Parts: sequence; structure tokens; C-alpha cells
Amino acid sequence: MANCLVAQSGGPTAVINASLAGVIRANQLNPVYDHVYGGIHGIEGVLDDKLYDLTHLSGREVEILKQTPSSALGTCRYKLKRGNDTDFNKLVSIMEKHNIETMFYIGGNDSMDTVDALSEWAAAHGAPQRFVGIPKTVDNDLVPVDHCPGFPSAAKFACKVVHATRLDYDAYTRPEVFVLETMGRDAGWLAASCCTTGDVDLLLLPEVAFDKELFLSQVEKKMAETGECYIVVSEGARYADGSYLSAGETAHDGFAHAVLGGAAQTLKQMIVDAGIAPRGVVQDLSRAARSSNFAQSLVDVTEAYELGLSAHMRSADPAFTGQVVGVRRETIGGQYNALYFAGPASEFANYVKQFPEDWILPDYQGITHEAIDYFAPLIEGEPKLVYENGIPATIKPFNKR
Amino acid sequence: MANCLVAQSGGPTAVINASLAGVIRANQLNPVYDHVYGGIHGIEGVLDDKLYDLTHLSGREVEILKQTPSSALGTCRYKLKRGNDTDFNKLVSIMEKHNIETMFYIGGNDSMDTVDALSEWAAAHGAPQRFVGIPKTVDNDLVPVDHCPGFPSAAKFACKVVHATRLDYDAYTRPEVFVLETMGRDAGWLAASCCTTGDVDLLLLPEVAFDKELFLSQVEKKMAETGECYIVVSEGARYADGSYLSAGETAHDGFAHAVLGGAAQTLKQMIVDAGIAPRGVVQDLSRAARSSNFAQSLVDVTEAYELGLSAHMRSADPAFTGQVVGVRRETIGGQYNALYFAGPASEFANYVKQFPEDWILPDYQGITHEAIDYFAPLIEGEPKLVYENGIPATIKPFNKR
Repeated sequence: MANCLVAQSGGPTAVINASLAGVIRANQLNPVYDHVYGGIHGIEGVLDDKLYDLTHLSGREVEILKQTPSSALGTCRYKLKRGNDTDFNKLVSIMEKHNIETMFYIGGNDSMDTVDALSEWAAAHGAPQRFVGIPKTVDNDLVPVDHCPGFPSAAKFACKVVHATRLDYDAYTRPEVFVLETMGRDAGWLAASCCTTGDVDLLLLPEVAFDKELFLSQVEKKMAETGECYIVVSEGARYADGSYLSAGETAHDGFAHAVLGGAAQTLKQMIVDAGIAPRGVVQDLSRAARSSNFAQSLVDVTEAYELGLSAHMRSADPAFTGQVVGVRRETIGGQYNALYFAGPASEFANYVKQFPEDWILPDYQGITHEAIDYFAPLIEGEPKLVYENGIPATIKPFNKR
Repeated sequence: MANCLVAQSGGPTAVINASLAGVIRANQLNPVYDHVYGGIHGIEGVLDDKLYDLTHLSGREVEILKQTPSSALGTCRYKLKRGNDTDFNKLVSIMEKHNIETMFYIGGNDSMDTVDALSEWAAAHGAPQRFVGIPKTVDNDLVPVDHCPGFPSAAKFACKVVHATRLDYDAYTRPEVFVLETMGRDAGWLAASCCTTGDVDLLLLPEVAFDKELFLSQVEKKMAETGECYIVVSEGARYADGSYLSAGETAHDGFAHAVLGGAAQTLKQMIVDAGIAPRGVVQDLSRAARSSNFAQSLVDVTEAYELGLSAHMRSADPAFTGQVVGVRRETIGGQYNALYFAGPASEFANYVKQFPEDWILPDYQGITHEAIDYFAPLIEGEPKLVYENGIPATIKPFNKR
């Protein structure tokens, strides 16, 4: 019998290991493959023949893997380019060497493009190896799916921090602004999700060109009305000319002082400089949002795991290649329900799904009810985590063994 | 029968409302007072006669209050100064007006000084009002206690984020440094607690003068040995001359560029400028650490609640005034156990307990085993939280009703 290979790529998430656990567990339930090999540091390590045998992970290890954040196999940013026959030949020879029939690649847009390119190349060269994609990305920007594994947990963490820090902010009487920053360079899904709890006054997305005058007038208005202004900004927020807020103010106000740091820091300084509030608090979620295993959404971790199962199960069909598994949404009796499907990798690759324009309220006022209805079911439920020494137990990453 | 008053002051924590819940619940179990009034925005609102009747909160509201972060009564930074007869007279007249016999004040060093000053003044003026302190502070810097409510939950949140982001950091092969910043202007307890999980390479505390050359040589060494360097810095880290790292580099390297933002941002830039790593990630826990109700330590929330109970119960003794309740530690059969006590407010006020020098390893290498043994039991256990719409349920703050 043949073997399979699974690897992870791109930015880690809180549930990317749940998809890995799904592939491993599916093969324990139905050993379609003799061995499940993990590729260390994505395609980069695979090309270096760095594999780790995951076949016989214990039930407990699989469970703990599901709640371990980050990419337990290590990750990479290496891109296999179409037409790079050297890399493609090398990869296939490594797969041949280990009798690997199927490669599962867990990643975002670029990784799904890799799945597409590899399966295309294999078909063109009569190579029998097959390539299957499992999506993940906290950016939530893949086109054919309702949402991407990893995003709901990041959104849940963000909502928890927003609600808690809003209460912290509300405890004071002194005038100050609060600015929270999230990841999201090209799509504002994570920043927008922060509005789900009703705690956000103003929202800045990459999808809406930043207008300093309008923004400051809105901050002034909120401060005048309530004495408070809680702002959420996506790191990718930008001026109409495309320059990022996080690049600082120099180019836009002519002052000599560069504002370093992120978009939130820039906004805070802008508000203070405009004399609207004498001080401000900056809360940048940074990496914590995507690695928040202690804030896993039950919906998310379940779907990530089941997508791993589904990819493995579908791969029992020898014609299954160049495909990516994903989740669509249906609503049954008012309840959210996930529908699993598989589609061509080309449909997943190289498109960016931005936050919908018609879900954005004017003047930075946040998001519509339709948007809240989209986010709300995704952050539902908490898995029962196994704790050790006061924090969720994790496995030792395979790239560090 | 007389009434009592409870108010909150200073920076909020994840469990300060659990102490409030304890006072309210104790009076429902044994109605020593006719009414439990909450003072809105601490002493500031009390002087303005802004009270909220908390006597008959439902059992469910008390339970949700325990998991609501921040100060549900609102907070203030107003200090009652010794010798300020105007404020003292006004406060006592408000208490007389509402037939308030006892005031419970939940806060840090300054608030405990207020309790001391008020009880002293009452004794000197033959006023029958009594004043009782309940400690809280994420800074953990009160002298007579083993630790302060609020700190363990902040430490638990910090440990969770450190462990998760360390795994995220470990997934990459590219050379970069990771710098995490915590609150703690004068005492490094919170930053030091981040070393409990064994994930931190270098630790910078306010208690140790910052030596740029030594620090950079240590970063270089870690990068050379392992290709990684995960650094934790307290916002209060400072040079030998007392100037804060967060104030930027200008004064120290003579360059014209000011580095804005916090200590972590400064360190990252310093490392990049020195050519040790081409890039770095900054993770500032900021306010999230102290408002992390979704990361409450069971030890912490239990003790905060029981300190509220204890303060109320002890106050049934008409001689009980000018006292603060607190927790000492004993170890029974290797297990942590909390001992509740009360002591004079003067012993709690105006001293800062720094992180012990003999718990600090040289050359920014972190903390000793004794220190880890101190922290470990404090972050143990997770309360069963009630969730609503994907995040922990909270009550509407009384200062916003």
C-alpha cells in the first residue's frame, strides 16, 4: 500500500493542527495509507526530505494536537512556482522515494495555488501523485467557501478582548480614546468581526479609503455625545492613494515626526495631535489573535478537524486530485449548519475575498445586521480543553523534535 | 439597622467584581446591613452622592458579576488626601445621610491609604463610620499579602499568550526576534510570571537596570545558538539613570529618530538597528491582560470573591475598622492553600513590593525555580464561565445604568 504526506504552510492559526489531527485520525479509522508522513516546514522541508512519521500518534496526542496552536509541523513561505520543473521533479522524486501517493497541503491562497500547479504538472507529466488542499487562514479571504478554518477562532478571541477591554475603558470618566488593531492586510474580516458584540464605535477597514477629516470629525462627534470612542482598525487600513496608515503620518501631514508602529498607534497620535482627546490607549492583538488556542471556537475547531477527515476520506477515490475541501453554510430552522464540499483548487487560489461593500455602514459606523448574522454563529461554542499547569496542554512541535 | 457602601478604585482587573460580588452575597446570606450601596466611580462619585442599591441583586446577577471584567461600579483616580477636612467631612455627611456605617473600598496601595486615612480621621473626630479595605492590583505590589487578587488572572492570561505565541514563533525558520510587553511600571511581577511556562529566552524587569550592550550580546548569543530569541519586557524597564525604555532611544544613542510606542517596540528597533535580526514581532498585552475575564484563574476568582465575603463577615464586629483583608500562603502536603487574614491598612498603603532580587537570574536569563514555584499554583484552575453569544456573559456596568 502507498503512503500519504501532510504539510502546513503560511501563517499559523489556532486550529490548523486540528486539520492535521483530522488527516491522522482518519487514517487510524480507515488505514487507506500505510504511513501518514508530516512534511516539516511545508514544501521547503519536504524538498529537503524532512519527514516525520505521524501514523501512530496516540489518541491522546491527537486530542492535544487539536488544541495546540500554530503549525505543529512548522511552516514556510516558500512558493512553488509554475514552470519550476526542478522543484516539481524533486518533490515527485521525494514522494516516489517514500511511496507517497497523496499529498495534503493545509494553507491559504498560495498553498491552494501550489496544489493546483502540482496536480496540473502531474497530469501533464503522467505522474500518479495526487494533491489535495485543506484551507486555513485567519484572513478569511478565500473565495469559494463561506469562511476559512482559523478565522472563527481569531474572531472569537478578538470579540472577547474587545468586550473585556471595552468594559475596562467604560470604567473611567477621564477623556481618552481606545484604539484596537487587528491583522488583515488586504481584507478586513477580522477587524469587522470585532463589531459582533456591539462594543465598537468606529471601524476602519482596508476596503474603505481612509479620509482623515471625516474620521476625525466622527471621533469628535462620538466624544461629544458619549465622552468615549472605541475604535477598531485593520492593519491594512489605507489612504485613497494606497499608502498604509501604519506607515505613519509623514507623507500626509507634512510634519517631520514619523509615527512608528502600527495603524492604531498612528490613529491615536492623530487624535491627540488634533486635540480631540488628551490621551489614548492602544491594544494591538498582533499574533495573539491567530494563535489563541485558549479561545478556540467550537464551530471552528470542529470544522477544521472534519475538513482533515473529509480530505483524507475523499482521497480514497484514486481520481481525487487538484481538489480542495471546504465549508458552505446552510441555515436549518434558524440554526447554522456546515456543509462540506470539494472543489477545484484553481477556484481557491489567487483570489482575495474582501469584506462585502454592502455590509459596511457609512462614515466608519461599523457593519450591518447581515454581517453580524454572518459572524455570530462562527464564534459559538467552546471546546473542553485539557489543561496542564494552568494553561491548555500542547504537544511538542514536530519541527522541534 | 445601618447600611454599607462598597466602591472600587484604581485600575480594573479581571476579578475586582468578584470581590464586589462577595460583599453583596455575604449580606444576602447574613443581612448585617439593610442596604448594600455601590459607590459609582469610587470616592469621586460617592462625594457626588452617586450611589446604586446592590442589596437585592439576583443570584444569577451575582454569578455573572463574578465573571464580568473591569470595575462594574466604575473607577476613579481621585485621591483623598490626609488633612483634606472638606472631603472627609463631605464623605461622612453622605454616609450619615444614607445611614451608612461601613465603607468597603476595593483597590490598590492608594485606596488602602484612603482606608487608613479615613479611619484615622474618624477616630480623631469621634465619627462612628468604619472603613475596610479589600485589595486588588494586577501589579501584585502590596506588601503584607502573598499576592493580590487580579494578578493571578493577568498572569494566567500572559502565560497563555506567551505559550501560544511562542509556538507561533517556533513554526518559522526565518530569523526574527519576538518581543512581548506587559504592564508593570514599578514592579516586574507580571513580566516575570511569563517565565512560568518555560517559553521565555530573555526577561527585562524594572528591578534590573537596562544595560544595552549586555542585552544585545545576550540576544546575539540566543540567535546564534538557536536561531530564536523570545523576549519579555515590563513596560517599566529602565536604564540605570531611571529613564524608561519606552521613552525611546533618543537620549541614549544620540540619533535624531525618536522611537515611539512602548518598550517592546524600542527593543525590537534596537535589535534590528544592531543588525542582529532583520525583523521582529511586537506583542503588547496592554489592557487585555488585566481585563482577561476569559482567562480567569480559578484560584484568583475564588480568593477575590472570598475576600469580599471575609471583609463583610469581619465587619459584623463593630470594632473592625482601618483594616484590610488579605491572603497568605501555606503549603499543605505539597498543595497550595490560601489563609485569610486582616491587618492594619497602614501596612498595605504606600509601599511597593518589588519582584525579589534573589528570584532574578543574571544576564536577563529569567527567574529562579523558587519564583516559578510561587507563580505556578496561582494560575491553576478555570472557573466554569457562562457564555452568551460566543463570549463570557457580563452584566451591564452600574455606572452605565
